[in-house]
Amino acid sequence: MASSTSTPRASWLDVSPSSHFSLANIPFGVISTSSDATPRPAVALGEYALDLNVLTQGNGFSGNQKLQDALAGVFSQPTLNAFAAKGRPFHREVRAYLQDILAADTKLPQLLKDNASLREKALLRLSDVKNHVPMAIGDYTDFYVGKHHAFNVGVLFRGPANALQPNYTHLPVAYHGRASSIVVSGTPIRRPWGQILLDPKAEPKVPTFTPSKKVDLELELGMFVCGSNELGQPIPVSKAEDYIFGYVLLNDWSARDVQAWEYVPLGPFTSKNLGSSISPWIVLADALEDYKTAGIENDTEYARYLRQPAEIKEKNVLGIDLEVELITANGNRKIISKTNSKNLLWSWPQMIAHHTITGCNLQTGDMLGSGTISGPDSGTEGSMLEQTQGGKTTIQISGGEERKFLEDGDTLVIRGAAGKEGALVGFGEVTGKIEPALPESTFA
Amino acid sequence: MASSTSTPRASWLDVSPSSHFSLANIPFGVISTSSDATPRPAVALGEYALDLNVLTQGNGFSGNQKLQDALAGVFSQPTLNAFAAKGRPFHREVRAYLQDILAADTKLPQLLKDNASLREKALLRLSDVKNHVPMAIGDYTDFYVGKHHAFNVGVLFRGPANALQPNYTHLPVAYHGRASSIVVSGTPIRRPWGQILLDPKAEPKVPTFTPSKKVDLELELGMFVCGSNELGQPIPVSKAEDYIFGYVLLNDWSARDVQAWEYVPLGPFTSKNLGSSISPWIVLADALEDYKTAGIENDTEYARYLRQPAEIKEKNVLGIDLEVELITANGNRKIISKTNSKNLLWSWPQMIAHHTITGCNLQTGDMLGSGTISGPDSGTEGSMLEQTQGGKTTIQISGGEERKFLEDGDTLVIRGAAGKEGALVGFGEVTGKIEPALPESTFA
Repeated sequence: MASSTSTPRASWLDVSPSSHFSLANIPFGVISTSSDATPRPAVALGEYALDLNVLTQGNGFSGNQKLQDALAGVFSQPTLNAFAAKGRPFHREVRAYLQDILAADTKLPQLLKDNASLREKALLRLSDVKNHVPMAIGDYTDFYVGKHHAFNVGVLFRGPANALQPNYTHLPVAYHGRASSIVVSGTPIRRPWGQILLDPKAEPKVPTFTPSKKVDLELELGMFVCGSNELGQPIPVSKAEDYIFGYVLLNDWSARDVQAWEYVPLGPFTSKNLGSSISPWIVLADALEDYKTAGIENDTEYARYLRQPAEIKEKNVLGIDLEVELITANGNRKIISKTNSKNLLWSWPQMIAHHTITGCNLQTGDMLGSGTISGPDSGTEGSMLEQTQGGKTTIQISGGEERKFLEDGDTLVIRGAAGKEGALVGFGEVTGKIEPALPESTFA
Repeated sequence: MASSTSTPRASWLDVSPSSHFSLANIPFGVISTSSDATPRPAVALGEYALDLNVLTQGNGFSGNQKLQDALAGVFSQPTLNAFAAKGRPFHREVRAYLQDILAADTKLPQLLKDNASLREKALLRLSDVKNHVPMAIGDYTDFYVGKHHAFNVGVLFRGPANALQPNYTHLPVAYHGRASSIVVSGTPIRRPWGQILLDPKAEPKVPTFTPSKKVDLELELGMFVCGSNELGQPIPVSKAEDYIFGYVLLNDWSARDVQAWEYVPLGPFTSKNLGSSISPWIVLADALEDYKTAGIENDTEYARYLRQPAEIKEKNVLGIDLEVELITANGNRKIISKTNSKNLLWSWPQMIAHHTITGCNLQTGDMLGSGTISGPDSGTEGSMLEQTQGGKTTIQISGGEERKFLEDGDTLVIRGAAGKEGALVGFGEVTGKIEPALPESTFA
């Protein structure tokens, strides 16, 4: 594995040093093209996608016959589930192999680099491919372990005294999310209708049925699970890393006014169902090994099934630089937040251990969200709710525009990457544009 | 459709008048056998299962060539999703056709009744078949519309003043559940370990990691969705019936002590992940048309997307008699509850309309739970939590045994049926036995 001080390995493909998809990355996704609408797995490198189904069929893995055999049928699937189910040592081997055949100094130039016919079929321009949700997602769980976010929102919803519940430092709080409404970057998000309490202090409390006035983003990381445990058999925290396939950027769109009215006592429901957008390329866990760092200190003496050795605590979470840009319909824009994915109280292995402690069976393809990631300071918030203190203040955009929450025609872009130029391990971006609500006549 | 006063139609098969699976029912499930382990669709009639894959391959639907053609590939699937996706008019036609060829007065005796070779292959004893979860369940949503239950539990968790939240009569409260842990009747349920507040009043609040001491049932109906709406396109309440495939009994096992500690602010999570058991045979919505009745009156003027015409309100929910039996490891037993599925504040179409109001896309195979169904009186509670007032009282079983919550080795049986002897439309039962917790050494 390349250390962060060595000279990055170069590819025989022309890869911009600012590309998130360097040779050090090799993220996996699912693509289709105008000439072949069948979704199939690919990896991204610079401005290119390498079609893994075409590569496999063109004997591109024959430099390692064991891999070529093991991959039979794996990359002809419309999702990455079959690949993910093969386990982390296999992912590691496939990624290293792909790095090898794509490297400028490849020992196997005849397979792809110097094989013009296969190269022409297998290498596509990213601008020519359509991305799909890369996994068949069985269940989606959204954690709430971004402590600064949980505190900020708790203050707004329940006041500072009850901002963090007593359980918060004892367990990674989470709730079940909606798997079907996970969409790939670029999918438009329609402003929802819902029940809203226009005046939360008026009695009796009578909601108004209206388009949401507080559509917001939630900046998160999503983690895809590889491997399945049996129902009734918890995954120990010490083995949980084996179940991490990789990560995506996640924008868990939220209708804050709908949420405030509906969420007691069983949690958010329709306020989160409008859509959850993910970046299309899954960055494998192994690609991020060099970017593990310490999370938020938790000095609570929590239960033993969640405890990790001290040396692991120092490399407990991922240190990925994240930014959020808002682009209005008029083209005015503003980076509204810059933060880092290390702002989590619990590690991904701890989330897995807690998820399964009562016996829940995880399955390959499940997605776990981190919960909204906010830093401790102004300008590092992962939601507009926090940044505008529930709409009390505004965010200044260029061109004299300002925002409390998202307006129709706004496009939200989240980007994230770790590492240095020439060897960036990044996610690209996840974007979504807010479409106007359905007309009132829809509900006449 | 048979009215409840006519003489029930008889089958040429010997069907006990007390069978839940009368000719008026024809519920659909997925089975396998010791001689053929491949799961495939079947219907139940009396003590028999009719293998629909064998029936189709044996030209059993050739009495209606349109059906036979439309069913190509449908019953060779390991789940009922392909069948469900065909829509309610199709389900109605297939069920009526099966009733016709199974009726004593069938006009098509040559297809099955007098076709000894096909009969021998297609008709199996229920005691010889293994049942499977009949649908590939994409998402599972658990509603909370059993008003008596919500009130009873609200009193225990938050006191009578806050038992029902202000939103309760304005919208069908729900939360996302865990689809992967839905298991078929008969699957053992392991007592979970989890974090529990042994003394909820002590400060500071420090949980204990221990096997749950309050494993409970939740008596519910589960509803399977047929059909899919696009993300961003709510299903109007007036069209929601088209999305109802059928119903099962659902026991949403709950660890009450884990739930009490974890559920704020985002709702129950690991306290519900230990398993949710369903009865194996899906009773089609059409089989229950005669048993629609009025639910719990809701005089709140709620939002227009939830409103139904007055004549529909009179037939808003299902009137299915339900009972819960507890059988101890010693074989002592007690019917601990008798209630009826009409004890719901919101109808299934209202639940669908609300689920999708912000744009959530339902998909064929999704399961919606009603929430726990309790009647208004003692002995009609759908959970032990309610019946023992959180463990303050006990339930007397035979043989001098008593229970506050479920103990290791206890088997819980839920049964439900509508209609009269000879024409019962029933679910059979959903059972599960509590296995001891994993040993403490598991977490050393």
